Amino acid sequence: MQSGVTDTLARFVARAQWADVPADVRHEAKRALVNYFAVALAGAHDPTIDKAVNVYARFRANEDATLVGRGERSDVLNAAALNAMSANVFDFDDTHLPTIIHPGAPVAAPLFALAQDTRQARALSGEALLLAFVLGVEAACRIGNAVSPEHYQRGWHITSTCGVFGAAAAVARAIGLDARGTAWALGNASAQTGGLVETLGTMSKSIGVGNAARNGMLAALLAQVGFSGPAAPLEGERAFLRCAATQPDFGAITEGLGRDWALRANMYKPYPCGVVLNPVIDACLALHGAALDAIESVELRGHPLLRERTDRPGVTSGRAAQVSAQHAVAVALARGRAGLAEFSDATVAEPPLRALGQRLRFIDEPTWSVESAEVTLVLRSGERMTQHVAAARGSLAAPLSDAALEAKLRELAACHGANLDVDALLAQLWALDTAPDAAAVMRAARPA
Amino acid sequence: MQSGVTDTLARFVARAQWADVPADVRHEAKRALVNYFAVALAGAHDPTIDKAVNVYARFRANEDATLVGRGERSDVLNAAALNAMSANVFDFDDTHLPTIIHPGAPVAAPLFALAQDTRQARALSGEALLLAFVLGVEAACRIGNAVSPEHYQRGWHITSTCGVFGAAAAVARAIGLDARGTAWALGNASAQTGGLVETLGTMSKSIGVGNAARNGMLAALLAQVGFSGPAAPLEGERAFLRCAATQPDFGAITEGLGRDWALRANMYKPYPCGVVLNPVIDACLALHGAALDAIESVELRGHPLLRERTDRPGVTSGRAAQVSAQHAVAVALARGRAGLAEFSDATVAEPPLRALGQRLRFIDEPTWSVESAEVTLVLRSGERMTQHVAAARGSLAAPLSDAALEAKLRELAACHGANLDVDALLAQLWALDTAPDAAAVMRAARPA
Repeated sequence: MQSGVTDTLARFVARAQWADVPADVRHEAKRALVNYFAVALAGAHDPTIDKAVNVYARFRANEDATLVGRGERSDVLNAAALNAMSANVFDFDDTHLPTIIHPGAPVAAPLFALAQDTRQARALSGEALLLAFVLGVEAACRIGNAVSPEHYQRGWHITSTCGVFGAAAAVARAIGLDARGTAWALGNASAQTGGLVETLGTMSKSIGVGNAARNGMLAALLAQVGFSGPAAPLEGERAFLRCAATQPDFGAITEGLGRDWALRANMYKPYPCGVVLNPVIDACLALHGAALDAIESVELRGHPLLRERTDRPGVTSGRAAQVSAQHAVAVALARGRAGLAEFSDATVAEPPLRALGQRLRFIDEPTWSVESAEVTLVLRSGERMTQHVAAARGSLAAPLSDAALEAKLRELAACHGANLDVDALLAQLWALDTAPDAAAVMRAARPA
Repeated sequence: MQSGVTDTLARFVARAQWADVPADVRHEAKRALVNYFAVALAGAHDPTIDKAVNVYARFRANEDATLVGRGERSDVLNAAALNAMSANVFDFDDTHLPTIIHPGAPVAAPLFALAQDTRQARALSGEALLLAFVLGVEAACRIGNAVSPEHYQRGWHITSTCGVFGAAAAVARAIGLDARGTAWALGNASAQTGGLVETLGTMSKSIGVGNAARNGMLAALLAQVGFSGPAAPLEGERAFLRCAATQPDFGAITEGLGRDWALRANMYKPYPCGVVLNPVIDACLALHGAALDAIESVELRGHPLLRERTDRPGVTSGRAAQVSAQHAVAVALARGRAGLAEFSDATVAEPPLRALGQRLRFIDEPTWSVESAEVTLVLRSGERMTQHVAAARGSLAAPLSDAALEAKLRELAACHGANLDVDALLAQLWALDTAPDAAAVMRAARPA
């Protein structure tokens, strides 16, 4: 048994200070939270969330916490679950590239719920929340690194399976658990890790993501009253890492703690699609203008992963279209846009788009980066129009600017017509490190 | 992809009738419920449950449901979790031998909670509850069969990972979902499957078992409002069975449905210990009487699994002692009893027992059944006293009688001095198939 992995991580989570977090990582944490609220506002009125809110409301102990973008309130555990679901339901949330974990939803949702917990004796400061968020993301992504890529390939939805550890670590830190309590929180989280790739594209996926947030929070609240766990919930013989992968990389969890930060590998999506589609959409937006019926066929060159993940002709729902190259190419070429409206059920059903999607051909380029792609329109005239994208918008080589993240939040906040003071919400997020009470952000995220 | 496994199981769960269940299986269901209430009453005041009850009470929407053996009440989801935890906390619950799933706790707990759900328009009859219980156990154990033994060996706590499907199937049937809704419930359960062997012997284990009950119930309640899941949450390419095992046996789920019944392979423990210790304790109880300081050493012959699972010298807690041959042998020889009191923290700490435990030697007998064992006392006089047990008490070859199950319930109900009408509880359980409202059982399971 590799000893000390859990202990090392727990000590780091319990003891790291905000002053130890480099300035760029601090700022990245705020960017991740701007993106989190953007996507939570967008997802808040999806039918999946409506259904979940209605069922979870039957099991709501009080109304301590805001449901982002909605009028209802709930207790902090339910709010953690439902807000994480909202933030992830469109797969428009952040992506930790080495693992494809979406860390923002499971880690931020319970922290902001905690900030509204009326049982807490003291307010949770913005700085304390940001530090806990940085550490929770670190825990989730490092555990993910240790089991990647096999874990996801086997069929485990890594955002859920590792997100629960991130939520547990974050809440453990925010409520002030010591290293032993943090290890118990990780142990209590280990009893709850789950989530399957098979559920992607269905409502069931959201339960797994919501559980990661809720159950990680519960894991820490239980640890707080001495509910204890195994000594080595990560590295033990029958513990998470060995269940999750044949050859876990234990060192990925412990090496470079406090020096290498997971948030530096976190990216934000410009489009509500599977991340491998980003360069494809960039290229199609650049090619927008060609008459659709002049297009004989579309050639799509990229890493084989692009084909493996997105060769989905004939999809019938917006949810499925988010990972369909056929629909993404057609709609981006046709409309010159690739926002939420372009991935609605109604848009997916449009016959010209469906017809164009059927004229798509994949060409594998195994040596290319997954952040690159090339789209060629073969016109009926014989002419060929090619657009090559070396690094997709939103990738680490071409990250969204702060202004672009603000614009994303503004657009998504507006998409349901919610009466929200977006300026106030953004101002609070960018100044969160000096806020005495992080709960103010949640008040700003509730429609008037 | 193996098609139709989920559909076949869902159709069976949605359509089977009580009249289709053979008489012996119907009776076995009642026996399992007598055992369930016995162990839930025993576990209800364990410190693990006390802590969980206190934390979960913060997130209690109402007081619809009884917490078995306790004064507090909770909403039906929390009650499902907490009662399943109570029933499993001592590992004294039932065991489906082919899988080592403890099916009673995760399946019975949500059904009895549902019976107390004030939102339900009609009472849940005893017959309806029993049928749902039979079908839930069937679902959990068949899914377990499909991934055994690899799944548990890898480190997944199969009671939790498969129990959530059993709970979902049972509640789906009890609330009247059709085959499609039942498949969604299984899909929603698949997003929540989890639980690790590493947590056994710690408080964390109980969270996993409680979640199986709670989350399976939630899965069905979500399916009821159209919260839909993947088409093939069991057999799909990135779905549960392939995540759980390298070579799942899909046929184990679908073959012989309605002919072979999992409850026929379900056993009830006479002692609060790992099941492989049962024949060892039988032998030691028969050998009780020898003076401890006359014993030079103890030889323990059995299947290698006995050694692998229970060679745990020097344990320091009652919880750990439940899977320690050293303690079990010492205490059974010394006291001639092996009940809950013999596996308390205080008993484990007694120096004479610890000293005797250190004089234990395992001898592997790979050809023996795990239900057999032989204990030889080697006395300082040179004399040897041997007791061979071919089939442990409680095994399928020597099952506990109905009277023994009644006695188990009576003993465990008394162990915390709860003021309970045990006769009434037993009478209601044995007559459950004719009861108009299954909730009456829960009222009888609450101390006056």
